[in-house]
Amino acid sequence: MLVTLLSDFGLEDEWVSVCRAVILETAPDVTLLDISHCIAPFDIRRGAFVLAAAVSQMSQAVHMAVVDPGVGSERMPLAILTGRGDILVGPDNGLLIPAADRLGGIVAVHEISSERFTRAPVCPTFHARDIFAPAAALLAAGAPISDAGRALDAGGLRPGPWKPGCRANGRLVCQVIDVDHFGTVRLSLVGGDLEEFGFQAGEEFELGWAGRRVSIPLREVFSDVPEGSTVGLVDSSGYLCVAVNQRSATRQLGLRVGDEVELKPVASEAAGSSIEPG
Amino acid sequence: MLVTLLSDFGLEDEWVSVCRAVILETAPDVTLLDISHCIAPFDIRRGAFVLAAAVSQMSQAVHMAVVDPGVGSERMPLAILTGRGDILVGPDNGLLIPAADRLGGIVAVHEISSERFTRAPVCPTFHARDIFAPAAALLAAGAPISDAGRALDAGGLRPGPWKPGCRANGRLVCQVIDVDHFGTVRLSLVGGDLEEFGFQAGEEFELGWAGRRVSIPLREVFSDVPEGSTVGLVDSSGYLCVAVNQRSATRQLGLRVGDEVELKPVASEAAGSSIEPG
Amino acid sequence: MLVTLLSDFGLEDEWVSVCRAVILETAPDVTLLDISHCIAPFDIRRGAFVLAAAVSQMSQAVHMAVVDPGVGSERMPLAILTGRGDILVGPDNGLLIPAADRLGGIVAVHEISSERFTRAPVCPTFHARDIFAPAAALLAAGAPISDAGRALDAGGLRPGPWKPGCRANGRLVCQVIDVDHFGTVRLSLVGGDLEEFGFQAGEEFELGWAGRRVSIPLREVFSDVPEGSTVGLVDSSGYLCVAVNQRSATRQLGLRVGDEVELKPVASEAAGSSIEPG
Repeated sequence: MLVTLLSDFGLEDEWVSVCRAVILETAPDVTLLDISHCIAPFDIRRGAFVLAAAVSQMSQAVHMAVVDPGVGSERMPLAILTGRGDILVGPDNGLLIPAADRLGGIVAVHEISSERFTRAPVCPTFHARDIFAPAAALLAAGAPISDAGRALDAGGLRPGPWKPGCRANGRLVCQVIDVDHFGTVRLSLVGGDLEEFGFQAGEEFELGWAGRRVSIPLREVFSDVPEGSTVGLVDSSGYLCVAVNQRSATRQLGLRVGDEVELKPVASEAAGSSIEPG
Repeated sequence: MLVTLLSDFGLEDEWVSVCRAVILETAPDVTLLDISHCIAPFDIRRGAFVLAAAVSQMSQAVHMAVVDPGVGSERMPLAILTGRGDILVGPDNGLLIPAADRLGGIVAVHEISSERFTRAPVCPTFHARDIFAPAAALLAAGAPISDAGRALDAGGLRPGPWKPGCRANGRLVCQVIDVDHFGTVRLSLVGGDLEEFGFQAGEEFELGWAGRRVSIPLREVFSDVPEGSTVGLVDSSGYLCVAVNQRSATRQLGLRVGDEVELKPVASEAAGSSIEPG
Repeated sequence: MLVTLLSDFGLEDEWVSVCRAVILETAPDVTLLDISHCIAPFDIRRGAFVLAAAVSQMSQAVHMAVVDPGVGSERMPLAILTGRGDILVGPDNGLLIPAADRLGGIVAVHEISSERFTRAPVCPTFHARDIFAPAAALLAAGAPISDAGRALDAGGLRPGPWKPGCRANGRLVCQVIDVDHFGTVRLSLVGGDLEEFGFQAGEEFELGWAGRRVSIPLREVFSDVPEGSTVGLVDSSGYLCVAVNQRSATRQLGLRVGDEVELKPVASEAAGSSIEPG
């Protein structure tokens, strides 16, 4: 069984290696796969984005993710079973929610509280070593998730760091969830949902925010539009992106992480790349 | 068998991968585990700290560590058998000593000089590839440590980069061995030795340095004291730390790596968090 | 079978982990070994240097390398069989050529185009996941390279980012291919070819560039010459290097990556470390 790891621990200290060692001591036959340990410290949104992007491109596995400003406080350690059969292990702070959404939603969620699933004594500043790693290892080795601790109501979990795209007042409302280092803007809408919301590859959609509206062609690659032109596409992360070919979309459009945007398919006869004041 | 690796090689060049490949060619069944390769170049103290912290949180293994400003000179390549049964492989420059201390001390130490344990011709600038990696692999595969080369006297090895806490003139003398990026100060005293030296969790101890004396409560987590207050605790590395809750202890107390400090338990009736000039 | 990976993907995003997962899904029994993912973005020369240096220090393996500014364009994905029996997988942009040269040259090269060797639908911005990783995995699992796609003429491939040392007008002409962070200059001549070109360890050679000529002793280690003196040596990468003991050769000699230099053995009776204007 594959066990993936994601954290904000960085690569300069011993923490990642200790978690890996604990997993291998508990379940020697698992294969360990680091997603990233270079998430900016305490950046739950960035951790949630990289985790969701990664797991949606992999087969079923156990995924342990730790970006955990609340370590040692009352926030619960969670084990989540997804619709696709993956298991997500990490803190109840929203970090795991977008990944669960990409993997078929939450089928069951349990608090990790069983003594068998943890390593005593639990160090209050290193739950990754003493709770998350042993639990991930046992679950990868086949222990039933219901043995981890009491079942929780998925509705009571802390929400993800962004709202998935949803209909509101006849429009599709999304959030900017990430800006990559080329300035490309990622929205909280996965490619697989585009058709359901009425979008067609090759046609246009209207993006509205802060009183502005822009018509943008939905294409496959940046270079499908001229240099300096805006384009929408689904990149390898699976999320809908707004890019400007060979420029920075975040700078050219003024979109920032957390901004709310509205999307609307444009009937093909009316399509045209125009900007109108709101 | 688990073989861990630590170095100051960084991640931009081929060096780490070459060492891993050499180990796998020699001993295909070992499991490799990187502790860190992001130790600052030539920083033996930092390498020794991360190594000691890591290995004390893992089960028995072979640990190869290379922070080696003297590569190519006369300093000896060592294989150390510890009281717990681990094997440490690396240069005789103090790097391995704190880890050996944490693993039950040095039971035997051999120079690595046997031709069977090295890869000819030995490149004078890359002993990691040609001496330490092949030796670590053979030892992990079960070769007796006495086959590596002549036995050495542990007392003749270069000392570790800091002195472990010890009694002197009726006081316990320690050194500051690390300051993490939150400004928390780590001392050369492991948690397991606190009781032996008369310290009790929940009580106070007196820290003295540079003519100052401070009474500090020994607790479990930073948040056991108010924001801005000083606290002593044993963190996940296993070393005694002096922290200031949500502040920088190094800045607030003026303690720096290498500083010598004195510690004294405070009888509980006399306890109180006070600072007196020396 | 060992599968190595090199890229300019960095460690902050999910890309490396996704490639690793794809390989493990296709060929669960391979051993994965990262060479480096910290090549500067789009720096084909640096990628080619680190790849060639790494693979020449390892046993036979499948090597996947992706530094690919032309991803999504017409540049071909390649699988190269080398004289030593290794397989190199990556884009046709010169990245793989120096590694092939170090591994016995190109015995066969095929375009990767078979549907069985790729993952549909191929994302135009992530050939590493959808072409190179599945192809590397299948080849490591034993699939014949001729199944990957049509055979290509090695002479039609894009050349490597530097010219290997070769005779021209009775002189040996090389290029500066890398400068490490100590300022040591690496030339496009591998140590194994020195004798063939008439160089003898322990003797002198003349280095000429930009109208200057310098006599340099060929030694084993930096410290074989006094501090501040120039020395030639073959370092662990296997390439001929020009260094200044405890100084920066690039600064002291003014040599930069891409510079063309001429080399000539100096008859031992005439040797002497002198600089003459050209």
